[in-house]
Amino acid sequence: MFMETKRKMKRESLNKERENQGRLLVKCPDKPGIVSILSTFLHNYDANIIESSQYSSDPEDGMFFIRIAFHAENLLAKSAQMEKEFAAIATQHLMEFQFTYWNERMRSAIFVSKEPHCLVELLWEWQNGDLDTDLVVVISNHEDARGMVEALGIPFHYIPANKDIRQQVEAEQIRLMEEYEIDLLILARYMQILTPEFVNHFKNRIINIHHSFLPAFIGAGPYERAYERGVKLIGATSHYVTNDLDEGPIIEQDVERVDHRDHVVDLKKIGRQIERRVLVKAVKWHLENRIIVEGNKTIVFH
Amino acid sequence: MFMETKRKMKRESLNKERENQGRLLVKCPDKPGIVSILSTFLHNYDANIIESSQYSSDPEDGMFFIRIAFHAENLLAKSAQMEKEFAAIATQHLMEFQFTYWNERMRSAIFVSKEPHCLVELLWEWQNGDLDTDLVVVISNHEDARGMVEALGIPFHYIPANKDIRQQVEAEQIRLMEEYEIDLLILARYMQILTPEFVNHFKNRIINIHHSFLPAFIGAGPYERAYERGVKLIGATSHYVTNDLDEGPIIEQDVERVDHRDHVVDLKKIGRQIERRVLVKAVKWHLENRIIVEGNKTIVFH
Amino acid sequence: MFMETKRKMKRESLNKERENQGRLLVKCPDKPGIVSILSTFLHNYDANIIESSQYSSDPEDGMFFIRIAFHAENLLAKSAQMEKEFAAIATQHLMEFQFTYWNERMRSAIFVSKEPHCLVELLWEWQNGDLDTDLVVVISNHEDARGMVEALGIPFHYIPANKDIRQQVEAEQIRLMEEYEIDLLILARYMQILTPEFVNHFKNRIINIHHSFLPAFIGAGPYERAYERGVKLIGATSHYVTNDLDEGPIIEQDVERVDHRDHVVDLKKIGRQIERRVLVKAVKWHLENRIIVEGNKTIVFH
Amino acid sequence: MFMETKRKMKRESLNKERENQGRLLVKCPDKPGIVSILSTFLHNYDANIIESSQYSSDPEDGMFFIRIAFHAENLLAKSAQMEKEFAAIATQHLMEFQFTYWNERMRSAIFVSKEPHCLVELLWEWQNGDLDTDLVVVISNHEDARGMVEALGIPFHYIPANKDIRQQVEAEQIRLMEEYEIDLLILARYMQILTPEFVNHFKNRIINIHHSFLPAFIGAGPYERAYERGVKLIGATSHYVTNDLDEGPIIEQDVERVDHRDHVVDLKKIGRQIERRVLVKAVKWHLENRIIVEGNKTIVFH
Repeated sequence: MFMETKRKMKRESLNKERENQGRLLVKCPDKPGIVSILSTFLHNYDANIIESSQYSSDPEDGMFFIRIAFHAENLLAKSAQMEKEFAAIATQHLMEFQFTYWNERMRSAIFVSKEPHCLVELLWEWQNGDLDTDLVVVISNHEDARGMVEALGIPFHYIPANKDIRQQVEAEQIRLMEEYEIDLLILARYMQILTPEFVNHFKNRIINIHHSFLPAFIGAGPYERAYERGVKLIGATSHYVTNDLDEGPIIEQDVERVDHRDHVVDLKKIGRQIERRVLVKAVKWHLENRIIVEGNKTIVFH
Repeated sequence: MFMETKRKMKRESLNKERENQGRLLVKCPDKPGIVSILSTFLHNYDANIIESSQYSSDPEDGMFFIRIAFHAENLLAKSAQMEKEFAAIATQHLMEFQFTYWNERMRSAIFVSKEPHCLVELLWEWQNGDLDTDLVVVISNHEDARGMVEALGIPFHYIPANKDIRQQVEAEQIRLMEEYEIDLLILARYMQILTPEFVNHFKNRIINIHHSFLPAFIGAGPYERAYERGVKLIGATSHYVTNDLDEGPIIEQDVERVDHRDHVVDLKKIGRQIERRVLVKAVKWHLENRIIVEGNKTIVFH
Repeated sequence: MFMETKRKMKRESLNKERENQGRLLVKCPDKPGIVSILSTFLHNYDANIIESSQYSSDPEDGMFFIRIAFHAENLLAKSAQMEKEFAAIATQHLMEFQFTYWNERMRSAIFVSKEPHCLVELLWEWQNGDLDTDLVVVISNHEDARGMVEALGIPFHYIPANKDIRQQVEAEQIRLMEEYEIDLLILARYMQILTPEFVNHFKNRIINIHHSFLPAFIGAGPYERAYERGVKLIGATSHYVTNDLDEGPIIEQDVERVDHRDHVVDLKKIGRQIERRVLVKAVKWHLENRIIVEGNKTIVFH
Repeated sequence: MFMETKRKMKRESLNKERENQGRLLVKCPDKPGIVSILSTFLHNYDANIIESSQYSSDPEDGMFFIRIAFHAENLLAKSAQMEKEFAAIATQHLMEFQFTYWNERMRSAIFVSKEPHCLVELLWEWQNGDLDTDLVVVISNHEDARGMVEALGIPFHYIPANKDIRQQVEAEQIRLMEEYEIDLLILARYMQILTPEFVNHFKNRIINIHHSFLPAFIGAGPYERAYERGVKLIGATSHYVTNDLDEGPIIEQDVERVDHRDHVVDLKKIGRQIERRVLVKAVKWHLENRIIVEGNKTIVFH
């Protein structure tokens, strides 16, 4: 669940406009009165609800999910008290919850192998201020991307990897994740398989881009297999990583039209455009706390 | 405003599952506490909020819009009391509001000229139970559609029209609208211009489909002009009718790709597919009270 | 291969404009000069090439495919001589080929079970003159569609079916296909499995619509499984039927966006829109001889 | 017409695979036998047709357009002779024509103002080898982009511009275009108006990206006006520049969905994604000689 995320965000880059904005995510058994409880609670702290999205898995006897973005004067001064008081309400109504604040950015790491297009897109969006995160480190099993990463002042770590040295590679990666206090790990075409230990360490905090329209073409060589099958659309899928290969909760998917003239090399070229935009969307939504993982699915509040 | 709609819905086709479902639309000046007020009010009537969407035109000093779908036992028995009590709250907070109930279907009329594709699509969706309305009359200035309409047991009125007899035609049309107690008037490729008197009579209750991607190609012959201009996408636009031709609030738009090989006849063929799906979507959203007209724009709560 | 189609078209509905139009499909080993040979041949018959599309599987040592639409005065008078003379050229260059003529419409049969949306769409396109075929019979294992089919003057045959009586059912179906001289068999959501004997009887002449984005969700219950997997797009696939379930050559695919709020019933509703437009496109392209099957893929000349 | 392009391509970056590939574009009055003439001509030079697309504006009495990509051993050695011989055929059949060769890349210049997203995308595609051009100079009326351009070894010229000094600015720009022997000028969000003199100098060789779905929102502030109008889709249009503002032949357009929550700043953000992919497509097609301008429209052979 999203509440399990151990946030270690830094109070950096304070943005005056945003410093009084917060978000509340709640999941609980559905019953009448929940919205009233939440909105009254926020109102008592003089918080104005800017945006609110909710979802009930079943009007009768289902689970209730809500994301509320709010604005309150001096929010940071009262947040500790607010969270403490809310904890009691949460206990009473069996709520899982998470408060986040605009001025606490998540800290992200990017893992990449040889293909740079997803990395380039993420860097570009980040430079434009369109990725609300502190991008604190890039790790790769190849040296290729070092130049463009370091040019932006982001540390780059080269960690060669293959399946024989997986354990020591992951130990080093985890050490770096802890050193850099990473909240979100983005696999931007990182072509190494992660062990269950590693994945469990970052539950619902690793976002991958798979270069097919899942569940079609799970595993290796999806463009080659799409070509063999003669599909008329190819796609890409962004998902949280679990220990079932390419089976984690899907965040976003998209497709483009192809035809008989497109060979594997063309599918890859077209696919790169899909991959980069799908991954960036998924990452943005995660950073804006728009995603709740429920079972093996995501609820994405657009 | 949507509150001006004089609903004359019938309690027909009661659907047990749905008879305890209602919707509340509210528009008011934004301020902290609105959601709390509304949700607490509903909770006091034991109503469970199933779906809620809101929008603030500006977090500071803007307008607030909300659509709430709710479920309450014995809703119909308590609706009168509920509406009465809510009126007092509304006055206090300068709210415009509208309660609607699933079991009160809107009554719709369709106007059509010679091209039947939009009519056919509406009839088909209606037969499938996907248009939640009582389709009570079809009016046309041509006889062509009589067969398919009457086959479904829907009255068909042939009213020849041209600009010389516009006034008497519209008088007859208004008489029929009143006789049939029409809530929504759908122009399914009705090619006659309506007078301001007629339009004012049905403010925000006439939905038109225009066969272009507005504001491109306002007025007559949009496919001919799209062909002349050499556009690479053609579109259709569904909007509420106002007295500025093709300038009313846009509800939905969509496009399809075309190329140099497509002559006007091809654009029309492709366009028919766009028109029918765009019109049906707009009509559905209106019937589900998902649309709020604000100024010359729509807020559509999907 | 497309050449195996035993055309038994009727000279009906002669359309003056079109009666001098023909099409030539050719497949052969690629080598320099093929286009020259074909275009010179046609020119010798005073044929003007209206449209020409070609594809080489590999510029070196691949296969060459071409579709030429042409116009020639008195085409029907000279077609026999033309085809005879072309046969010699074809032998020399190892060409498989097929001549078709606008005035010889294919004869189509539709198979349908309970869900009528694809049938309705096909009937509608056909009524509009947008399906260039003689729609000569509809066969169903349910009585539901009889009314709408017979209203259009098309014979409707009710043949109850289940796996225990498959053989005798198919014998009756084949008998009808022969009686009606069927060129194309359209499975418009026909939910019975066909035996290899039946399929072989109509090789590359049975078009099916599968209600998923193949190869995802092969087999039964694709919308249920799409819901379970939490995909963000659902799709439909039209393909030629082979003896590998849902593995035949794909003709066309399309998708629509869905989200966490869409339950199975919503996916089905959205899916119906995709299915009907995907099937209609595939059928049109087949009728216009735009499709060449090569291995387990299609070349579609748009 | 495309034949007016004064090509000054350099024989650089020879690519062994491609050095024997050429393209032939032809426009002439339609009549039977044209394809035969062209394909026989090429065959006589042992050229194998790899790809061929054609279009007749009207089967009777229209214009005929064709693009043929071909491969011939020792193409460069025989091209002069081939072109000379073809000139005689062209005269006889009133053909305009153009031969181009893969090993002769067009030389491109990019003009940009402050918004870098289209420039960044072009540079990125070019670095990837996906833009088949020599990118020889970037000119801007701002200094912002100098760093990223020079980092790639491309000369950057800062030429401040405003309407008072337009003439001398354009004189300097034309001088540079000549110095750098420019074939294609790409306006990648260059926000200065060009004079008719300048435009005439580069007829059908200046590609612009306009940030709206033309012909909607011609001129300044299209996103602001799209917001005001409440459209549900926004778009971008790439076109050749003529002396009628935003009225030149459209090459490519695309759109994205927006809704009532998207303010101008959001439309701009979404729009940037559309602009960059639409411009890149148009530029690629131009570089591959896939575009023929006819009147105020384009024929694009995909």
